[in-house]
Amino acid sequence: MDNRSIGVFDSGLGGLTVVKELSLLLPKENIIYFGDTGRVPYGTRSRETILKYARQDIDLLASMDVKMIIAACGTVSAVMGDSLSKGMDRPCTGVLLPAAQAAAALSATGRIGVIGTPATVRSGAYGKAIRSIRPEAKVIGRDCPLFVPLVENGYIQPDNQITHLVAEQYLSTFANEDIDTLILGCTHYPLIRDIIAAHVGSDVTLIDPGYETAKYAANLLTRSNMLREEGEGSEKYYVSDNPEGFSTVAAQFLRREVRSDVVKIDPENPAALKGTR
Amino acid sequence: MDNRSIGVFDSGLGGLTVVKELSLLLPKENIIYFGDTGRVPYGTRSRETILKYARQDIDLLASMDVKMIIAACGTVSAVMGDSLSKGMDRPCTGVLLPAAQAAAALSATGRIGVIGTPATVRSGAYGKAIRSIRPEAKVIGRDCPLFVPLVENGYIQPDNQITHLVAEQYLSTFANEDIDTLILGCTHYPLIRDIIAAHVGSDVTLIDPGYETAKYAANLLTRSNMLREEGEGSEKYYVSDNPEGFSTVAAQFLRREVRSDVVKIDPENPAALKGTR
Repeated sequence: MDNRSIGVFDSGLGGLTVVKELSLLLPKENIIYFGDTGRVPYGTRSRETILKYARQDIDLLASMDVKMIIAACGTVSAVMGDSLSKGMDRPCTGVLLPAAQAAAALSATGRIGVIGTPATVRSGAYGKAIRSIRPEAKVIGRDCPLFVPLVENGYIQPDNQITHLVAEQYLSTFANEDIDTLILGCTHYPLIRDIIAAHVGSDVTLIDPGYETAKYAANLLTRSNMLREEGEGSEKYYVSDNPEGFSTVAAQFLRREVRSDVVKIDPENPAALKGTR
Repeated sequence: MDNRSIGVFDSGLGGLTVVKELSLLLPKENIIYFGDTGRVPYGTRSRETILKYARQDIDLLASMDVKMIIAACGTVSAVMGDSLSKGMDRPCTGVLLPAAQAAAALSATGRIGVIGTPATVRSGAYGKAIRSIRPEAKVIGRDCPLFVPLVENGYIQPDNQITHLVAEQYLSTFANEDIDTLILGCTHYPLIRDIIAAHVGSDVTLIDPGYETAKYAANLLTRSNMLREEGEGSEKYYVSDNPEGFSTVAAQFLRREVRSDVVKIDPENPAALKGTR
């Protein structure tokens, strides 16, 4: 038994789709979330900058004595790869490995699509992870840079004409690739799952890394005898900017109300807590 | 005569639309540009964070001994307002005042629209600046948060269906307002000027703050006897991330080739120059 919190971070608030799944699967766990809203987005930045920001985020959560760290950010998971858990004194995972394992297991044909930010697709990390399990797999990547701003600006209604047009352009990449599985490789994408599904066809299995990562964390904590076993879990939120707008946007990703206050914190200077809301 | 450079900064590369106008109007001037590509965009961040980032950008240019500083960023100009020039030991301007002066002078009816990032519109700074010149003016603001990602992802062809649909939604704000002048209050917007014009009507005068700011700087340097008077001007570029992708994106905003190398620099730690390309 380990009653410490699970630490989760993302470049912004998209990682709350992982918190949503975690709190459903592990309702007794306390969760600490950090969203780096002062430096979002990561997905269009260089590898060097993403690594610098991610290490600061990890150090911030480690300083809060969490029992496990989840990088709930497709970009960080793809760019850091295995180095995410190396040298860590506690379990640490991204969303990539759980999603890659699920795709490798669920695909019948081994023809798997991956959509994500430019940094995620450029890294080729999903291809490497999937082929390490199924060497014959064919992994086709496509970056979808407008999906994040579309989701963040509320263009998520299943019949939204603009998002459909953008999705049609992006997902035409897969028209002649005959994929049977598609990884939604960015935490924002589950919010437009229906639109994405409409453009790849109903016979394609969609993999949600948030859900797969929550299952992965539950298994890992169970096997390590590190679950919190009593009471109702609590949540604590930190952001690096815009705490005022947090609860409205957060509720969209959680698909429920936010259960706690939010605190502003500077990941480059974490001692300076800047007031609560 | 003052042979030092003019310093120009922006949250990213949109401010190069100001450099384009400056180098046309003042071809003998040397220009130093800093684009904060490691922390772009500013327009969706809090006032506090924008002020912190802008002050670091100004300090960076001041440390390079420029003779004048131009905040070629609609968001910084709107959020800092008058405080941009207060206490400075050299001339310092944003893009807001020159654009507000032009709009106040050119509007026949005094009914003026402003489009910009959420931070720019929320600040109300254009309304204050215009009414300080024309107290009876009616200023109507509308934030257009998707325009920047659309421009940055190349959705700028005059017949681009997606950008037209987004513009139609945003600019319907002005349908019953009877404006005769519209300020393009973000440095990215001149790249979709034709699309914007199509949705507000050909009888509306569009104000480009980049052009107005270049004229303002030329007047100020002339009056202060601070022009560089001989030779051909040079350009020097600094960014905080992604120097590799600089020249391709920069050429779009400059509408010509980039005339110099680019150097990566950290605005929080400017001593650490990180190599040239």
